[in-house]
Amino acid sequence: MLPRCAAPHVRSTALSRRQFLERIGQVSGAALVGSLLTLDLLARDRGGFRLGGHAPSEGRNRVLILGGGVAGLAAAYELRKLGYHVRVIEARTRPGGRCWTARAGTTETEIGGETQVCRFTNGNSFNLGPMRIPHHHATTLDYCREFGLPLVPFTNFNQAAFVHRAGQPRRTMREITTDLRGHTSELLAKVARRDALDVPLTAEDREKLIAYLRGEGRLTEALDYPRGGDTSGFLNYRDHPRGYAASPGATADFGEPSAPLELETLIKAGFAQPDLAMRELHQQDSMLTISGGMDRLPHAFAERLDGMIDYGAEVREIRRTAEGGVVVSGVAESGAWTKEADFCICALPPHLLAGLAADFSAETLAALRLPIPDGAGKIGLQFKRRFWEEDDEIFGGRSVTDQAISQLYYPFEGFGKPGSGVMVGYYHFSDRHAEFDVPHAEREARALAEGALLHPQYPAEFEHSFSVEWNRIRHSGMSWAWWHSGADFDRMLTTLRAGDGPFYFAGDWASVLTGWQAGAFVTAQSAAAAIHARAHAS
Amino acid sequence: MLPRCAAPHVRSTALSRRQFLERIGQVSGAALVGSLLTLDLLARDRGGFRLGGHAPSEGRNRVLILGGGVAGLAAAYELRKLGYHVRVIEARTRPGGRCWTARAGTTETEIGGETQVCRFTNGNSFNLGPMRIPHHHATTLDYCREFGLPLVPFTNFNQAAFVHRAGQPRRTMREITTDLRGHTSELLAKVARRDALDVPLTAEDREKLIAYLRGEGRLTEALDYPRGGDTSGFLNYRDHPRGYAASPGATADFGEPSAPLELETLIKAGFAQPDLAMRELHQQDSMLTISGGMDRLPHAFAERLDGMIDYGAEVREIRRTAEGGVVVSGVAESGAWTKEADFCICALPPHLLAGLAADFSAETLAALRLPIPDGAGKIGLQFKRRFWEEDDEIFGGRSVTDQAISQLYYPFEGFGKPGSGVMVGYYHFSDRHAEFDVPHAEREARALAEGALLHPQYPAEFEHSFSVEWNRIRHSGMSWAWWHSGADFDRMLTTLRAGDGPFYFAGDWASVLTGWQAGAFVTAQSAAAAIHARAHAS
Repeated sequence: MLPRCAAPHVRSTALSRRQFLERIGQVSGAALVGSLLTLDLLARDRGGFRLGGHAPSEGRNRVLILGGGVAGLAAAYELRKLGYHVRVIEARTRPGGRCWTARAGTTETEIGGETQVCRFTNGNSFNLGPMRIPHHHATTLDYCREFGLPLVPFTNFNQAAFVHRAGQPRRTMREITTDLRGHTSELLAKVARRDALDVPLTAEDREKLIAYLRGEGRLTEALDYPRGGDTSGFLNYRDHPRGYAASPGATADFGEPSAPLELETLIKAGFAQPDLAMRELHQQDSMLTISGGMDRLPHAFAERLDGMIDYGAEVREIRRTAEGGVVVSGVAESGAWTKEADFCICALPPHLLAGLAADFSAETLAALRLPIPDGAGKIGLQFKRRFWEEDDEIFGGRSVTDQAISQLYYPFEGFGKPGSGVMVGYYHFSDRHAEFDVPHAEREARALAEGALLHPQYPAEFEHSFSVEWNRIRHSGMSWAWWHSGADFDRMLTTLRAGDGPFYFAGDWASVLTGWQAGAFVTAQSAAAAIHARAHAS
Repeated sequence: MLPRCAAPHVRSTALSRRQFLERIGQVSGAALVGSLLTLDLLARDRGGFRLGGHAPSEGRNRVLILGGGVAGLAAAYELRKLGYHVRVIEARTRPGGRCWTARAGTTETEIGGETQVCRFTNGNSFNLGPMRIPHHHATTLDYCREFGLPLVPFTNFNQAAFVHRAGQPRRTMREITTDLRGHTSELLAKVARRDALDVPLTAEDREKLIAYLRGEGRLTEALDYPRGGDTSGFLNYRDHPRGYAASPGATADFGEPSAPLELETLIKAGFAQPDLAMRELHQQDSMLTISGGMDRLPHAFAERLDGMIDYGAEVREIRRTAEGGVVVSGVAESGAWTKEADFCICALPPHLLAGLAADFSAETLAALRLPIPDGAGKIGLQFKRRFWEEDDEIFGGRSVTDQAISQLYYPFEGFGKPGSGVMVGYYHFSDRHAEFDVPHAEREARALAEGALLHPQYPAEFEHSFSVEWNRIRHSGMSWAWWHSGADFDRMLTTLRAGDGPFYFAGDWASVLTGWQAGAFVTAQSAAAAIHARAHAS
């Protein structure tokens, strides 16, 4: 079994719209490529295609979309633009699914029956689901542009934030990353100086490598990472990347640099951890987000689908008709309902789809049973003031700890504002999930107790909180999916991408970009394109 | 002679207001500490001092401030709050000095007579002087908070931006930094594996170091940085920090990782350069800036000093009076003027102060002659569209090149907006200064020719430009100062911080934070505090 973050499919890069269309063409064969030439989708490519699609014929133009998360919304939006009659069935009373932002008044009754009401001050919020957009997730960014949503930087890595390890005082990212770079540069530079590297380099290149390492590590001429903290030896340049023990004065006092930790200390205490600096492809600077909250994106879709979304409608049964179409039935507050259509895009979580009474093929059903619901959770803590900015000079980004709370995230906007602020008091992943499967009051208590080791201001400044545990959220029941093996994942993709009669599948979990909104969008577009191709096949 | 960036005083960290006040107390002696207890300045400390200062007595309450840059404005603002009669003499018709933002209509006639008028589309701008605020420059951030100016992230480092070296194709930061980390991690991990490090580590710690290096470098089990680009060997985790040669597909295609450059190539081509990732203390993430332009800060001061600033007034003569005060005279459009005061804060560039007819002591004059004006320049290029975002996925940050243009900076806000955008087409420092000491048209031509090697979109998209060469800007004549030696710098600081009779000195150049606005602010506050202490000394 693979943990989620080790699954080979979890992280990948998104396609530009053009790349996406090229890819769809490749994977779906020449017939689809031909029909794509008539698709209006192409007109939205940045390269400037202006080919218009003609509307689908009667009898092939009704599409039912199950689920009003971002995958379902995007599929409906694309098909509607092409002239289809679309209807989105959404169990919740809001659009967006896991793309959800907590603000004053946000109310949720969890599986298990506990109800929380968010009591944040107006203007405070935090994203319960997705919170950041990689700069290379072109599909997500394209929709934000199309809807005129304000994209702003999301600070992912912050040198002023903290790294905390059990039994150690909190350290800043700048202290840890500077020391690790200093010590490893020293070790390698000294090996290079005595010409004991495992690769052949000319004497000239070796000296250039040493010069580079001196710069990286701020090494002295003797190639030492200065233990006393005086890194001015390098180029006579009085800059101290790990910061000061005593700050410099206003006029003539240059201050007291802080003293590095020894390599042994860093290793033994667990500070030698890769990727504190968020250098994996999907976390690399620059990251973006939507000013005011990520849920503005699903709401922008929903505005453009006005009257085409049935809220509060739960799906119970999914059947094929004799004519090759679908009939779906379920319940709503107003009673039972039944809808017919020519095609159906299933954009519900896979474990919920697999549990419905449905005419899926045996292969489809087996594929839908492969993804395993994973858990994750966040808590938003409102404090009387933004002490992390005022006292600790932390403007955005994250702190990490080996406690269960795992990660703290600081607000990405509203810097310097007076009054209260909301920070994310934990963002835990699957391996700490069970520890937070408790009532909200216990989650809050744990967040406050563990967080106070990083921020002693907690007890004096705390006001109230709102938390989400995704496995307890109705109609989702998971944060994202994981698979027992890469083979399982490949089998699922291969099966689902072909569709199943009138059924198509969309969602981040059905893409190589699981866990990212871009995965939802590419599968939504792929399903829309496949339906459009079939609606035009003669 | 030291180049600016090698001067020991150029970079340092700013003080919190409390630290500043403590420092002032230390450097200025017990008398000043005592008098500070009555200063209203203390009431603004974050720690919450609420001690009120009483207004200065008649005969010690008139302060003339020469220069309406941020140092002069801040000194006037602080003194005015303490009850002083302040008057700011500013040669320009706008406040802010080098803190200046170009927008539609910005007009400047350079030394030499060439006039530029900025023809940017409304909404486009760029900062001609300071553009970013380190998160630890508390004084600057405090003023932004006090005036309610919107602080937003300034993306300094961006993995999607380019590194360009002569004769090489452009590379992304992610390619270069990932390869350098990969190769150096491989070299060190292999040395550690054969137990040939220059420091003793236990076997257990050595294995932990190797595990850390495997993560940092994405090394295979054999400790190789994968030449074929398949970094999935590490923890079976299919993430490719250096990006893709062929992007992954929407469904089942995992894409083609890009192939690393060899270490030798990186070294020979000059890619092995420290601090591409902006890790020096004053460039570390997170950086901040003011939404809409940095010049909103001096304008906020000026609004609060309404009627107390004489614009268009040039200083010619600075004299002492028999009573120990000052009389300053000069010219304005309306003719000659003369002003008397009890104290005078000189907040003009040092080389301009040294050139005035002034009653400075011989020591002061010698000190003012030590800083040497340095040059730097920027050009803002308006393009028809934000192609760096649309085509290259660059949202903020900088690209670097070894050509004269040195650095490109991308706009830090307005991401995804349709229509034109302005990027900084060069930001060159002292060593390339002479190459840009030419008419604007030649600067523009050079910016376009060299920049096109990083962005081939330039010729098709360019509209117009506005440039600044700080050594050619009247009333400034420099970007910042440099010194022949650290001893010169120390001598200057020691002399000027004591004041000279009624004269005090303020400006970034007179602080340990030269080249940063925080340096201007701490010297302004220091001068204000010293005057206030004297005004209360009995």
